[in-house]
Amino acid sequence: MRMKAAVLHEIKKPLVIEEIELDKPKTGEALIKMVATGVCHSDVHYYTGDVPRELPIILGHEGAGIVQEIGPGVTSVKPGDHVVLTFLPSCGKCRWCHSGEPVMCDLGQYLRNGMSLDQTYRYHFAKTGKDLNSFLWVSTYAEYSVVPEASMVKAPEWLPLEKLCLLGCGFTTGFGAATNAVKIKPGESALVIGCGGLGLSAVQGCRISGAGKIIAVDVHPEKLEMAKKFGATHTLLNKHNVKEIVNQVMEITWGEGTDYAMEFVGWTQTDETYAIGYQSLRKGGTMLFVGVPRTDKKTIPIPPRDFSMYRKKLQGVLFGDAQFQVDIPKYIDLYEKKQIDLDSLVTKEFKLEDINTCFDNILAGNRVARQVIRF
Amino acid sequence: MRMKAAVLHEIKKPLVIEEIELDKPKTGEALIKMVATGVCHSDVHYYTGDVPRELPIILGHEGAGIVQEIGPGVTSVKPGDHVVLTFLPSCGKCRWCHSGEPVMCDLGQYLRNGMSLDQTYRYHFAKTGKDLNSFLWVSTYAEYSVVPEASMVKAPEWLPLEKLCLLGCGFTTGFGAATNAVKIKPGESALVIGCGGLGLSAVQGCRISGAGKIIAVDVHPEKLEMAKKFGATHTLLNKHNVKEIVNQVMEITWGEGTDYAMEFVGWTQTDETYAIGYQSLRKGGTMLFVGVPRTDKKTIPIPPRDFSMYRKKLQGVLFGDAQFQVDIPKYIDLYEKKQIDLDSLVTKEFKLEDINTCFDNILAGNRVARQVIRF
Repeated sequence: MRMKAAVLHEIKKPLVIEEIELDKPKTGEALIKMVATGVCHSDVHYYTGDVPRELPIILGHEGAGIVQEIGPGVTSVKPGDHVVLTFLPSCGKCRWCHSGEPVMCDLGQYLRNGMSLDQTYRYHFAKTGKDLNSFLWVSTYAEYSVVPEASMVKAPEWLPLEKLCLLGCGFTTGFGAATNAVKIKPGESALVIGCGGLGLSAVQGCRISGAGKIIAVDVHPEKLEMAKKFGATHTLLNKHNVKEIVNQVMEITWGEGTDYAMEFVGWTQTDETYAIGYQSLRKGGTMLFVGVPRTDKKTIPIPPRDFSMYRKKLQGVLFGDAQFQVDIPKYIDLYEKKQIDLDSLVTKEFKLEDINTCFDNILAGNRVARQVIRF
Repeated sequence: MRMKAAVLHEIKKPLVIEEIELDKPKTGEALIKMVATGVCHSDVHYYTGDVPRELPIILGHEGAGIVQEIGPGVTSVKPGDHVVLTFLPSCGKCRWCHSGEPVMCDLGQYLRNGMSLDQTYRYHFAKTGKDLNSFLWVSTYAEYSVVPEASMVKAPEWLPLEKLCLLGCGFTTGFGAATNAVKIKPGESALVIGCGGLGLSAVQGCRISGAGKIIAVDVHPEKLEMAKKFGATHTLLNKHNVKEIVNQVMEITWGEGTDYAMEFVGWTQTDETYAIGYQSLRKGGTMLFVGVPRTDKKTIPIPPRDFSMYRKKLQGVLFGDAQFQVDIPKYIDLYEKKQIDLDSLVTKEFKLEDINTCFDNILAGNRVARQVIRF
């Protein structure tokens, strides 16, 4: 079939909306009509070339849509079903899926090239017939996509997919850090470093878990205002004075430090990010690394002796350590009951044609929680 | 009272056996007649000056003895009781003791100067009356010591204190890493890096927990032989080829990596130590840092992106994360039932006069598990 998609031909060159020929779904796949997709900062790293990928490619990995057609062997969805697409697949068969850790599913290793489940291409330029690369098997910056059954979770028809799409990456990554990676107990304290879409979702995870102190840190005052809205009990403006921030945290926590520090800065993280998180932790506390650090960073700027003597923990988190086939339906339920807020995470809606504007907004300082493209 | 102790007057100068005047126990303290003390590598770092301390000092922190006299307020021991001394105190009153994490007891902050519980001195030179510094409140390289009630655990009279003394530091630190810091499940796999007294105790912790694969790594073949004796299922000689070691681990674990990697190298750890441990870990695995790293190391040589994307954990461990008032009696019980082996950990017994020989043995390459001084 023919459809339109935003194509990245060359790094740092604007994406081009083009006519694409999309194959029918093969075994284990479904054709999805995209309803909405979030624009995640991670996509921008492929656009800028920070993380290299085979080009041309159709980016986008935080989508939701409606099943149009299913390929052989698909049993869990049928045409007409609403689905949230997940940027990681879960095959249900590997050692990780069987141990309740689908974020490490063995299928993940095939996400690095631009081919589909069976190692062939689904996307081709309408004009030339030349193949295009898929992105994480979802390629959501497109009107339609062919997606493995393993990368989708069913959603109810009466809830807005232009909000639920956030569950496919950002919300789940942030919320799950607080509720899966560490299981915050009522009254515990958490430091949230970086209040974009992920950090604000983590604040919600802390709030719903009954955290006593949710201390949000950011360099932008307006993000701290949002953090307050989502449940932060304290906000600290980072003026690049680590000592000042750490002293403030100590004051708030009666000199003890926080039970958890969660980092959502990712690519732009600096030694300062680590120092704020690490030094604010109580003895025996856990620091979560949720953002995706730069590829060229070779060391963790934390003194190993302090780390060892104070019995602290550092923990990498991927997709909020979610059991996403189990957790996303729960988040949908909480959203419907208004116990979590996805609506306020969406700063503004755009059309696919605006994709370069969305990228520019992120690169200009990312003072947005989530930009969402509606088809 | 008068007694003999080994005194460190100056760094890198041999310890001197001297006549010491020891005060009576004050409130919350007991007078202990030392029966035996292990010689731990940590002491040597104070001797070499790697870690600075106020001198002169009576070192030693892995002792066991018999209560001679108690000061006011002491209720849990009485004269004649056998006790294992612990290098960390547990006050039973602070936030950490109340949360079952006595290794972080608030009293720990007072261990850094050489004074006793009430911030006065108990040890004085017999000749001059000049004060001497205590070490971690136990100063076990002495015939007698005045020790807080908070730093001792009762032991049965019929078991040899020259073996039980190891529970006061080394054994508990290694064994507890496997059984407290991570709770190994039957069939899981662990890499043990460094097979001195701590590593060999960790091997025992892995074995008794039912670990399926216990892979010991060391640079000394004779230490690997000992590791086998204590239960290692595989041994790998480290010839400083990280790739080779990691490949061997992958072969043993069917390409997956180990569930845990435990580091017992401490001060002499290098980038290689981290690389072996970290790269041998499965996705989502945990690396424990049990040895005490150098004071001048400022960073952890692990790429943060790998750490984050593979959802790994790094965890500092202190004194085996033990609830030592609860755990040491359990270890004594396991020792009596021959389920753990302390006897083979003791390489050789010495007299207090041999303390400099013991230090030399450690500095010469430490091919010993534990040297024990009997009084």
